[in-house]
Amino acid sequence: MAHEIPVTEPRVRGKRPPQGDPVVDRAFALLGAFDARRRSMTLGELARRSGIPTSSTLRLAGRLVAWGALERDAEGRYSIGLRLWEVASLAPRAQGLKQVAMPYMGDLEEVTRQHVLLAVRDGDQGLLVERLSSHLAMPVLYRVGGRLPLHSTGVGLVLLAYAESEFQEEVLGRPLVHEPEKVAVSPAALRRTLAAIRQDGLHVLRRRAPQPLVSVAAPVFGADDRIAAALSVVVPLEHAEPRLLGPAVRTAARAISRGLGAQRSIGLVPAP
Amino acid sequence: MAHEIPVTEPRVRGKRPPQGDPVVDRAFALLGAFDARRRSMTLGELARRSGIPTSSTLRLAGRLVAWGALERDAEGRYSIGLRLWEVASLAPRAQGLKQVAMPYMGDLEEVTRQHVLLAVRDGDQGLLVERLSSHLAMPVLYRVGGRLPLHSTGVGLVLLAYAESEFQEEVLGRPLVHEPEKVAVSPAALRRTLAAIRQDGLHVLRRRAPQPLVSVAAPVFGADDRIAAALSVVVPLEHAEPRLLGPAVRTAARAISRGLGAQRSIGLVPAP
Repeated sequence: MAHEIPVTEPRVRGKRPPQGDPVVDRAFALLGAFDARRRSMTLGELARRSGIPTSSTLRLAGRLVAWGALERDAEGRYSIGLRLWEVASLAPRAQGLKQVAMPYMGDLEEVTRQHVLLAVRDGDQGLLVERLSSHLAMPVLYRVGGRLPLHSTGVGLVLLAYAESEFQEEVLGRPLVHEPEKVAVSPAALRRTLAAIRQDGLHVLRRRAPQPLVSVAAPVFGADDRIAAALSVVVPLEHAEPRLLGPAVRTAARAISRGLGAQRSIGLVPAP
Repeated sequence: MAHEIPVTEPRVRGKRPPQGDPVVDRAFALLGAFDARRRSMTLGELARRSGIPTSSTLRLAGRLVAWGALERDAEGRYSIGLRLWEVASLAPRAQGLKQVAMPYMGDLEEVTRQHVLLAVRDGDQGLLVERLSSHLAMPVLYRVGGRLPLHSTGVGLVLLAYAESEFQEEVLGRPLVHEPEKVAVSPAALRRTLAAIRQDGLHVLRRRAPQPLVSVAAPVFGADDRIAAALSVVVPLEHAEPRLLGPAVRTAARAISRGLGAQRSIGLVPAP
């Protein structure tokens, strides 16, 4: 992943870490060792996952616990701490956006009784900032804070369609595959899809796997009139009525854009 | 605040920072410099707020931007980064709890059309983990990621009522004041309130300021059968029907507790 810090220092016992920055990188490597499958780890697991010697891991983790970036439970397992979550809740591109979006996402969830997703682009992936799901909704694919591919999800395609053209070309130049079917994506077809999304200000994606679903996604614009996020409703393929869902998703996306201070109307009110 | 790291090193120009841990503390001091009123800062503001010399701030902030803990906008202002938010979303006591609670919070919001709050205790304060608010809801007091006093909010009193008795005694021993009225809290009255909450498994708090409201709050228990969070509905005092809200809040809190793996029923089903 683009964000992972390579551990440059070899594991040499007894060697003092170099002065300054590498210590900071190591501290963040400890944080980066956690993921959705590893939300709590022993000291040994943390050391192995981060590639940092156990003695340094113990010392660094102690500093992180003291600050509240990590917490340690009664069995000595480490997990991400509440203080880190508190600070992270100030991230404008996640919580700030979410704060504006939530009431409108609630409306959509109430109308559709399924999943409502809000995602932003981070590097070459989408990051799910919020998800509202009804009790009755079908089993869900993504978790809040999780990543999703740009080229094979409704929100991802919308984020890609409104990204800078250099970035689009870079993505189009790569070998892309639809997971989990392992079907290759045609760059020409993807290019047409992106153009159509910009034309319509909406994307309706039908997928058969991993489960039959329809995702109806629309762009959310920020105060700089550039794309800030993508909003979607994900419903089971059976009984889905994208013609009815489209206007609802568009309306909510437009309301969120206005809430963020966007002036742009392109893509929000497409020509009939 | 218990979590803030004092900046131990004096501001001496040109002095090399000591090796190892203090650098980590400084990196986190930069993160801790952000708050709800300062979500984005220039380099100078960041240095002033954190008490770290500008040259060190620049260097450290560069590392944090490289990792994604901070982001830097076109005007050079720093804000909390998306990668930090992503890692923080793995915090069991915040996002993990929220994931279980959200559908039930959604139900409560749909029924009440006002505010639904979920808070955990962190040190001697409550931390708002989630808030669902209807469009029509009265202006709101608290933001997600924000802190609230234990002794004068519905969720805070519930968190305090089920906390360890040593901690309760410590709080009862302090001079406590209701904000914004500046009315002193009587320790004896607070003690009776906490006992009544444990008896009822519910608290109905009526407040006149800063606005007339009723908060109806109930405890949420975790897999260890200890208090994990407090759930509340906050409605305008006028037209509030706490007798009707109580069972709704209790029911949702119980459902969340079960979702977290709690066995405990004390306080969830009080005697009639």
